[in-house]
Amino acid sequence: MGKTTFTVEPGKQEVVMTREFNAPRELVFKAFIDPEAIPKWWGPAYLTTTVDIMESRPGGRWRYVQRDPEGNEYAFHGIYHTVAAPEKLVFTFEFEGMPGHVILETVTLEERDGKTFLTDQSVFQSVEDRDGMIASGMEQGSTEGLDLLAALVELA
Amino acid sequence: MGKTTFTVEPGKQEVVMTREFNAPRELVFKAFIDPEAIPKWWGPAYLTTTVDIMESRPGGRWRYVQRDPEGNEYAFHGIYHTVAAPEKLVFTFEFEGMPGHVILETVTLEERDGKTFLTDQSVFQSVEDRDGMIASGMEQGSTEGLDLLAALVELA
Repeated sequence: MGKTTFTVEPGKQEVVMTREFNAPRELVFKAFIDPEAIPKWWGPAYLTTTVDIMESRPGGRWRYVQRDPEGNEYAFHGIYHTVAAPEKLVFTFEFEGMPGHVILETVTLEERDGKTFLTDQSVFQSVEDRDGMIASGMEQGSTEGLDLLAALVELA
Repeated sequence: MGKTTFTVEPGKQEVVMTREFNAPRELVFKAFIDPEAIPKWWGPAYLTTTVDIMESRPGGRWRYVQRDPEGNEYAFHGIYHTVAAPEKLVFTFEFEGMPGHVILETVTLEERDGKTFLTDQSVFQSVEDRDGMIASGMEQGSTEGLDLLAALVELA
């Protein structure tokens, strides 16, 4: 299975995550904008994810709700700025438990030797926001999510 | 007339601009989301600005076209993430002459002693993008724009 890498430089307000998939780019891209795919892979494995809204076009909104085994809910939403299949997604991201803190996400998919190389850059409004997201378990949650995504697209 | 300040720290991927207006917060906020106001103040003074699209709601799009005296056109567009009158706007910003480079803008308006204090934070996808915007004359263009905005709202 592929390896997820994170670049988190001190004092910067971004996180860059990469991952290789042994699957066509079209399939990986679709998993990001298909409301039936998102619940199968998005976020930490112990949470269930429901797609409340997904309008995958520039100006469209998205909103996901996650539930933990105790029934607690965590909701996230944002707006798509760029939807350029199968190469690039740019969208905003806000955790509703911390309203007012917005992240700019850029997901880029490149084809290399028949595989798909994902780069996911998260740009935060402050270093504190970035460090808070890291402290909340972003790396583990994202790695678990991308492992599930790999299983989904590499078996398809 | 008030003074516009810029904070541009080396190696960071953001610019923070501030300005005080001797005008009510509602009036300053409205100047950002009123398609009739934008042409009167937005951008460098030597360019004329036309509002092509302005859907000032979360998920709404905006697009402005600027023309110089020679007839050259410069277009900009983005998506509103937050529209919280009269306090806060969060939106994306892309110069169509450099497609694929997206900025996350946060405009915050605070009331202080009957005046309005504006903070406009621009977060870039890279330090290079930020430095390129500064090199292109962002500080002069923004200062001229905010001088025009001040004239507009302080006389109203």
